[in-house]
Amino acid sequence: MNTLQVDLGTRSYPIYIGQNLLRQTNLIAPHIQSKQVLIVSNETVAPLYLNKVINTLDDFDIKTVILPDGEQYKNLIVLNQVFDTLLRQHFSRQTTLIALGGGVIGDMTGFAAACYQRGINFIQIPTTLLAQVDSSVGGKTGVNHSLGKNMIGAFHQPKSVLIDTETLKTLDNRQLSAGLAEVIKYGLINDLEFFEWLETNMSALLKQDSQALGFAIARSCQNKADIVAEDEKESGKRALLNLGHTFGHAIETGAGYGEYLHGEAVAIGIKLAAQFSARLGWLDDSTVSRIIALLEQANLPTAMPKELTGSQMLELMQVDKKVIDGKIRLVLMEALGKSVVTDQFDIQDLTVFLQGFGE
Amino acid sequence: MNTLQVDLGTRSYPIYIGQNLLRQTNLIAPHIQSKQVLIVSNETVAPLYLNKVINTLDDFDIKTVILPDGEQYKNLIVLNQVFDTLLRQHFSRQTTLIALGGGVIGDMTGFAAACYQRGINFIQIPTTLLAQVDSSVGGKTGVNHSLGKNMIGAFHQPKSVLIDTETLKTLDNRQLSAGLAEVIKYGLINDLEFFEWLETNMSALLKQDSQALGFAIARSCQNKADIVAEDEKESGKRALLNLGHTFGHAIETGAGYGEYLHGEAVAIGIKLAAQFSARLGWLDDSTVSRIIALLEQANLPTAMPKELTGSQMLELMQVDKKVIDGKIRLVLMEALGKSVVTDQFDIQDLTVFLQGFGE
Repeated sequence: MNTLQVDLGTRSYPIYIGQNLLRQTNLIAPHIQSKQVLIVSNETVAPLYLNKVINTLDDFDIKTVILPDGEQYKNLIVLNQVFDTLLRQHFSRQTTLIALGGGVIGDMTGFAAACYQRGINFIQIPTTLLAQVDSSVGGKTGVNHSLGKNMIGAFHQPKSVLIDTETLKTLDNRQLSAGLAEVIKYGLINDLEFFEWLETNMSALLKQDSQALGFAIARSCQNKADIVAEDEKESGKRALLNLGHTFGHAIETGAGYGEYLHGEAVAIGIKLAAQFSARLGWLDDSTVSRIIALLEQANLPTAMPKELTGSQMLELMQVDKKVIDGKIRLVLMEALGKSVVTDQFDIQDLTVFLQGFGE
Repeated sequence: MNTLQVDLGTRSYPIYIGQNLLRQTNLIAPHIQSKQVLIVSNETVAPLYLNKVINTLDDFDIKTVILPDGEQYKNLIVLNQVFDTLLRQHFSRQTTLIALGGGVIGDMTGFAAACYQRGINFIQIPTTLLAQVDSSVGGKTGVNHSLGKNMIGAFHQPKSVLIDTETLKTLDNRQLSAGLAEVIKYGLINDLEFFEWLETNMSALLKQDSQALGFAIARSCQNKADIVAEDEKESGKRALLNLGHTFGHAIETGAGYGEYLHGEAVAIGIKLAAQFSARLGWLDDSTVSRIIALLEQANLPTAMPKELTGSQMLELMQVDKKVIDGKIRLVLMEALGKSVVTDQFDIQDLTVFLQGFGE
């Protein structure tokens, strides 16, 4: 087992990464405050792992709430089901929530924990690669609004993150690839060595080679933990983790939540970020090709959805959280393995760039 | 003008109290982060004061959202109207929300600010006595759930609180009295001198004598600011501010939100707390009578709603935020002007006490 630490003073917490961790009471129970535990999961994950977790925690008063599966359910209405259960059970401020599932379940459970009685504890048990390498770490929680992704939420750190790599065995190929988009992202932000390792080891990852997966997950979590420790609330550096996401969120919102997996939209977003960086003269064409090649090797889509026009994209990008005084900021690439947050581009040029994909 | 300070380190902020402050740009504008301002108000307050505030802030890009008036609208569905407006306007993370109204508007606007893009700034401009002396100060924000009052929310401090006592002139008598319940509360928690002052000056307050009102508001805010500075997130002492509220919230929820004004339910709750304290032998009957007399002098209701049974009350009190491991805790009175948070009572005794009001 590999244990990493997210250093945030009194809000620090461990990330446990390894095989068959779901059964290890000693990794979960110490992070639970009182007897009251609510496990939040979804219809896909619950049949696979819920009983395992419940059996691991037999000393507790455990209730469960099972949400429908998919990005289209990540909203205030569905979130209210968690509050319903908590209140019907008379669950107190000392309750601990456990998120058992992918990024949607993690984000929603974390946000429910942030808001219930103005804040209770929660634990992340991510079961998709995307959640394991990205969304379960760092305390970003929230739900979508029909006009913008992740626009309603809170910074609320978990008490621990438990990554059981065995859960990936039940992940379908599409979900695995979606997770790899965020893995590739870390290489492009600030870890060229990791990017090159991914170029060599992508086929091992797709075959779920456990050593390769373990390394990629730990390296991704380490990258994320380092950035979060430096800038918890995204006043600066943390925005780099949004590489591909300004385009990606617009694609997710524009195409309709659930149409693309988050990681798929991010893959398209990374390609757009690379191409726009090249348009600004920051990357050469061969580097862009190398990035696209790695995304394609991971079986990720890279083509813009046909039904989205350039002006729709631009409209949707206006509600991005990085916008300041109406000015869109993007995470772009200065070089392979070196990203920056910038508004140093002409909005007209971005418009023309986006219109190149259809109007 | 009187300026108090809520001391919370980097989250400290001023409370301005005085006449005609709504027109003072220099008290509002410095607390606004960027040009983007959304004023949240309701159908009752907006016609009276919205234009005044807009005119005071003529350098800003101001949008407004007007919510329906009443506790029954303090929920996630109505809250979403604030997010709708923010997103349709493409308002960024640098936006400042302004709450212009009573406690419901303040709580909802504060919670919207806590959640929009994971947290933006907001300013409180309370226009009811209740909001001026209590809910606008201290950063408790949130909405109700059908199963429990204020169960969904966040601690999110405002950047400033602007109390223009002129706004009370348009307040109806019922609302004024509701505010006085919270004023009386401060006397009972830890300020015997203030309680006695209220006994002498209640008729001046009801007549809206501006000096008496100014004193009562400032004294209340000072009491609250002191407690909040000591215990921002209610891990201890702050729970004292809940005197009358465990009973009161149960009454509000049980009777249906909007049936009682919050302050009215709190008045009944204060009476119940006094009577139950007497039952425990902590207060003598003459002190209870003195407390009830002051509540009645303030034209507040003190009778339990007939339609609520004792067991319904108890059921509703189980979801109180002070409950620990299933055990109800109450704010009770050890003496006049000295309250404590306690679980040192027999739940059976509380049951019998509540059943005394009808089954």
